[in-house]
Amino acid sequence: MAKIVECVPNFSEGRNKEVIEKIVDVVRSREGIKLLDYSSDGDHNRTVVTFLGTPQKVEKAIIDMAQKVYENIDMSTHKGAHPRMGALDVVPFIPISDVSMDECVELANRVGMQIASKFKVPVYLYEKAATAPYRENLADIRKGQYEGFFEKIKDDKWSPDYGTPEVNIKGGCVAIGARVSLVAFNVNLGTDNLEIADIIAKRVRNIGGGLRFVKAMGVKIEERNITQVSMNLVNYEKTAVYRAFEMVKMEANRYGVSVVGSEVIGLLPMQALIECAQYYLQIENFSMDQILEKRIWE
Amino acid sequence: MAKIVECVPNFSEGRNKEVIEKIVDVVRSREGIKLLDYSSDGDHNRTVVTFLGTPQKVEKAIIDMAQKVYENIDMSTHKGAHPRMGALDVVPFIPISDVSMDECVELANRVGMQIASKFKVPVYLYEKAATAPYRENLADIRKGQYEGFFEKIKDDKWSPDYGTPEVNIKGGCVAIGARVSLVAFNVNLGTDNLEIADIIAKRVRNIGGGLRFVKAMGVKIEERNITQVSMNLVNYEKTAVYRAFEMVKMEANRYGVSVVGSEVIGLLPMQALIECAQYYLQIENFSMDQILEKRIWE
Repeated sequence: MAKIVECVPNFSEGRNKEVIEKIVDVVRSREGIKLLDYSSDGDHNRTVVTFLGTPQKVEKAIIDMAQKVYENIDMSTHKGAHPRMGALDVVPFIPISDVSMDECVELANRVGMQIASKFKVPVYLYEKAATAPYRENLADIRKGQYEGFFEKIKDDKWSPDYGTPEVNIKGGCVAIGARVSLVAFNVNLGTDNLEIADIIAKRVRNIGGGLRFVKAMGVKIEERNITQVSMNLVNYEKTAVYRAFEMVKMEANRYGVSVVGSEVIGLLPMQALIECAQYYLQIENFSMDQILEKRIWE
Repeated sequence: MAKIVECVPNFSEGRNKEVIEKIVDVVRSREGIKLLDYSSDGDHNRTVVTFLGTPQKVEKAIIDMAQKVYENIDMSTHKGAHPRMGALDVVPFIPISDVSMDECVELANRVGMQIASKFKVPVYLYEKAATAPYRENLADIRKGQYEGFFEKIKDDKWSPDYGTPEVNIKGGCVAIGARVSLVAFNVNLGTDNLEIADIIAKRVRNIGGGLRFVKAMGVKIEERNITQVSMNLVNYEKTAVYRAFEMVKMEANRYGVSVVGSEVIGLLPMQALIECAQYYLQIENFSMDQILEKRIWE
């Protein structure tokens, strides 16, 4: 199978359709790149793009996209409800298949180095690419936003990982990182009692003493008269989908509430579901190379 | 995702390495074709090749392979333990992804037409490509073998689907068909009593009143001191892996025997395991388009 990396750049333009399309055009019908989705928000004045490809193709694509972003967006006049520190605001790389997290960290470094030298924009590495624990969290890096960075960047603690400690007036700064893929997975409960869904969500999630990589909340599904434990599995390799599912079931048992279904929102890597099949079928010694489709592209 | 068809040609040479390699070379490092496996048996004097590709690439590859087969194998001097009717003996096409069975039947017809006209070899269509129910079963078609076909072919009932009713002395005849992918799936039992494994196998399989598309037998795993229900799931779309698994579990319960594991032998299509995850996680409204890897190649 080809090495595949997902890239989800966020840039600071969500209103001017012409500019948005010009920037997205860089990854549209580009050889070796698959544009999966992009959506703009006018209030946030921000666009999120999702595309895939081999590390090499993704590297070239995001540099070309950065060029279009810096040509077309001026942060000195930018207003928007969403926190942001640059024209190209955040660029995470996510390993999808046959790519290690280390390779995504290297990719983040290569892209960071190029953006700093080509466009004179200071680069901060975050999450798995972070150069210190206090720089892992994107929100901590971005605190103060574009406007605050002219001061913040002079603090040694916040000197950029690539580039000189000088904010690019038009382009701002940018956070580039590597992280695991997120799976949005909701479990439907056979009760209309939101209180029960809330309690279960609290017990299943990390901050409530539950599973390490689960974020969860209770939600009411009015049209079906049921409730739901809505989850984000932020590391499906370490906290597998089946573990989150079984834990919801287990907690629901206490209230005599049954699980009436579940749903996967958006995309997820094949491995996240294959792992569940392996668990429930008790498969021994399985290798992803036994997946026909994987063999075709290896 | 690209349309992918699997092709598993069987040809009547399992001893002469030079000839075998010459024939397999046709699909080795061929652009757009993935050779997954080939194995020869000297006693059977036969080689089985497995390769994949788009319907168009597979069509060209198998015609080129047929040419090499007919150039190098002479049925009038062939001896071997395995039933056979031609130099190129059997050619099944198996839908793997984004290809319907109807497309594989069409492919079998296109290839059959070309082999009959180019090489003057009579062609019989079998399984899903069969032109009559009595021609579905390969064993029924091949009955009498190469030697018997000089008589059999004169019978109107056994006139070929493509080509004239005249056996090609050097090439014999060939069966070309379309069928679903087969999943080899074994369930390990926590007992060394082969009798129990045998009884469960009989209850689970079609001929014993069990699941329609399951073939099964009991097997002893000496080195682990356990037994196994060894199964061939001949239509995983209609009889899903989880149904076979749960039925083994259910029958084993009766003897207080637990399922201690399972194994998938060789390759299987992604969908066969994704379906199991959907079942156990009770996922509603899932689409294979939610699989990231699938989106990349569509």
